[in-house]
Amino acid sequence: MTRLKSLIESRHFDLAITALIIVNAITLGLETSERAMQAVGPLLVVLDRAILAVFVAELATRFAVYRKNFFRDPWRIFDLVVVGLALMPATGNLSVLRALRILRVLRLVGMVPSLRRVVGGLIAALPGMGSIMLLLALVYYVFSVMATKLFGSAFPDWFGTIAHSAYSLFQIMTLESWSMGIVRPVMEVFPWAWLFFIPFIVCTTFTVLNLFIGIIVSAMQE
Amino acid sequence: MTRLKSLIESRHFDLAITALIIVNAITLGLETSERAMQAVGPLLVVLDRAILAVFVAELATRFAVYRKNFFRDPWRIFDLVVVGLALMPATGNLSVLRALRILRVLRLVGMVPSLRRVVGGLIAALPGMGSIMLLLALVYYVFSVMATKLFGSAFPDWFGTIAHSAYSLFQIMTLESWSMGIVRPVMEVFPWAWLFFIPFIVCTTFTVLNLFIGIIVSAMQE
Amino acid sequence: MTRLKSLIESRHFDLAITALIIVNAITLGLETSERAMQAVGPLLVVLDRAILAVFVAELATRFAVYRKNFFRDPWRIFDLVVVGLALMPATGNLSVLRALRILRVLRLVGMVPSLRRVVGGLIAALPGMGSIMLLLALVYYVFSVMATKLFGSAFPDWFGTIAHSAYSLFQIMTLESWSMGIVRPVMEVFPWAWLFFIPFIVCTTFTVLNLFIGIIVSAMQE
Amino acid sequence: MTRLKSLIESRHFDLAITALIIVNAITLGLETSERAMQAVGPLLVVLDRAILAVFVAELATRFAVYRKNFFRDPWRIFDLVVVGLALMPATGNLSVLRALRILRVLRLVGMVPSLRRVVGGLIAALPGMGSIMLLLALVYYVFSVMATKLFGSAFPDWFGTIAHSAYSLFQIMTLESWSMGIVRPVMEVFPWAWLFFIPFIVCTTFTVLNLFIGIIVSAMQE
Ligand code: NA
Ligand code: NA
Repeated sequence: MTRLKSLIESRHFDLAITALIIVNAITLGLETSERAMQAVGPLLVVLDRAILAVFVAELATRFAVYRKNFFRDPWRIFDLVVVGLALMPATGNLSVLRALRILRVLRLVGMVPSLRRVVGGLIAALPGMGSIMLLLALVYYVFSVMATKLFGSAFPDWFGTIAHSAYSLFQIMTLESWSMGIVRPVMEVFPWAWLFFIPFIVCTTFTVLNLFIGIIVSAMQE
Repeated sequence: MTRLKSLIESRHFDLAITALIIVNAITLGLETSERAMQAVGPLLVVLDRAILAVFVAELATRFAVYRKNFFRDPWRIFDLVVVGLALMPATGNLSVLRALRILRVLRLVGMVPSLRRVVGGLIAALPGMGSIMLLLALVYYVFSVMATKLFGSAFPDWFGTIAHSAYSLFQIMTLESWSMGIVRPVMEVFPWAWLFFIPFIVCTTFTVLNLFIGIIVSAMQE
Repeated sequence: MTRLKSLIESRHFDLAITALIIVNAITLGLETSERAMQAVGPLLVVLDRAILAVFVAELATRFAVYRKNFFRDPWRIFDLVVVGLALMPATGNLSVLRALRILRVLRLVGMVPSLRRVVGGLIAALPGMGSIMLLLALVYYVFSVMATKLFGSAFPDWFGTIAHSAYSLFQIMTLESWSMGIVRPVMEVFPWAWLFFIPFIVCTTFTVLNLFIGIIVSAMQE
Repeated sequence: MTRLKSLIESRHFDLAITALIIVNAITLGLETSERAMQAVGPLLVVLDRAILAVFVAELATRFAVYRKNFFRDPWRIFDLVVVGLALMPATGNLSVLRALRILRVLRLVGMVPSLRRVVGGLIAALPGMGSIMLLLALVYYVFSVMATKLFGSAFPDWFGTIAHSAYSLFQIMTLESWSMGIVRPVMEVFPWAWLFFIPFIVCTTFTVLNLFIGIIVSAMQE
């Protein structure tokens, strides 16, 4: 056991796994190309399965060594999920699972210290955004319900249900075709509709801006 | 009276009202779904009325206890407005009032301390923006009048009146379809129109940027 | 003379001029409305002329009192230009001059201290941006010439001349319809066109961002 | 040799070369205008060749004087590349090289100290962005492979290959027509597609924002 532990904690082991992830990224990428599949398709599939087998063995070893502590590192849980995904049967309407296999490549983030630090920094910024995110969610819910009640029957594709409205309002918040695509057509039926949309745009962009300012300010205090 | 006061100032009372607001948010959301209305429509209406009755009783109690001091907390005034809205008759062309009922859910912001702090922070940023907002309003007025005089007769939908022009200029400031949607068509009639629109874009985005920088800088000095 | 000086330097004089500018803003705005013109058109024209006469008299007095020093305040030069504009004959293809009359309202910025301070701050930020603006101009020139040579013959409307290209590249820098509107159609003829446009987008937005960061940093050091 | 060295290090020599670059910028610009080519075309071509000859002589002299040290200044390498480009035959499907001649004008950046400082500052900001750029590249690769597998067969123009997907995802990250142009049409075939695109938008814009915040913070610590 001590031998296994010193193996999986050695730098060479990490480098080998990192190299395998990169090779796997390339094979999974090549699988999208019809020409590559015709030329070396079977090889790619074999390689993919072999690498997956190594990953399973690797995670089993890590689990055998660390036991409960295995779950302390959130990256190990991520590893477990993405490797687990690949082991699920991907047939019928579960074929989406095949596309998720590429997520395995994100294991690289857990292996390369500099990437790990960057992602850690991004995630560390999230809790400070909790209240403002909650506020934004509340504002979205209120405006989505209002939009559905006001414009739902006239524009069912955009505001037919709360979910449709939330999607359309997200589009409007990103300023994508908000006027020519959505608000001008709506105003042809409801001329006062700008009274709904312009305050929404001003409020949400101002709130998102304050979210960003909060991150900048807290990043500077460190 | 002291009893009532200790009741409405207890944590349990706040929690109960918060829970009721959340239940009300759900019922008002379900009311937008035809399927939910067919299944439990009458129940939703009864629930909505019952919760409204509780809110009216709550605000009446608060007013009885605090009297003049009731109006010192701006959130109480907001409560009064949104609960009052629900009591107004919502028939005929006042049916928009029905959609405004969901605003009641925003009472949550006044009840949850962390949300209250965030919104307080957003509102506190406003006065420092006064002068620059006044400047922006002035620039908008001047450019709207000019756009109406220059392009109003050729493009009445976009620049027919000062209000139309102000809306179109707001769209242009958010960079939404400003060129392919508005300025290129205008330039086919008035080839020099870019001399009007590009300075407008540069000036207003630069001014809005300075507004944001001002907020960042003043947020940091605290 | 001393009397005139104490008159034009009195607070009441400033307030009176400010009030007149606001009245003039309203009359010039009403002139864009056909209904207002039919109802009180002649009155609006008379008012406009009367106010213009007062402005001419005011500036003449200021000049008589301050002589050379008149030109020391850049706002006086602005006053002179916008009042001068209104005195020019606005007939034939000079009818654009009529639309420029509303610029007179911007005299308000020179009269209201808080607006004056904000605009002063915006203008004070400009010199620090000199080098980066020069760089941006150079990059625009180089990319405009290249775009004209590469895509000019196939897409004359967008890239037919250096001026057309500069306008289209400005649109692309603001990210307005850059892909669906311009680059995808161009790529149907020149499949490698993304090699030209994506570096342009990345470089110019990165440069403009650095411009903004420079302003933020220098604003903070004050 | 010492004479040559004192010549090319004199201020007059730098000014002369700078002037020549500006003249060359103008001639290369005029070459895009058919009218200018008809009027003074041969003159422009002669001028262009003469200036190119001076540049070749200048670089040869610099190389003769500095030898190995010539390559220490990255701007000299840039000079070498852009002057070298002009010497390559520009016929047949290499006619793109003609358009690249204008890049010569960017030599100005290396000659004018203030521009040199600005570009130096921009480039100095790059290494600090290394990890986050690598992360962004990884995220792009993973999402491009997924998009190709999920949407490639239904929307070959947008997601047919990894390269097509990467381009479309870049467009979506810049928020250009992401909803009306891409995601709404995709959702008509795959109603759950927003589960792919909205997380992509939120993650990449949040990452790019953090990139910018990093630059601001590090700019301030200096
Ligand atoms: Na946009
Ligand atoms: Na757009």
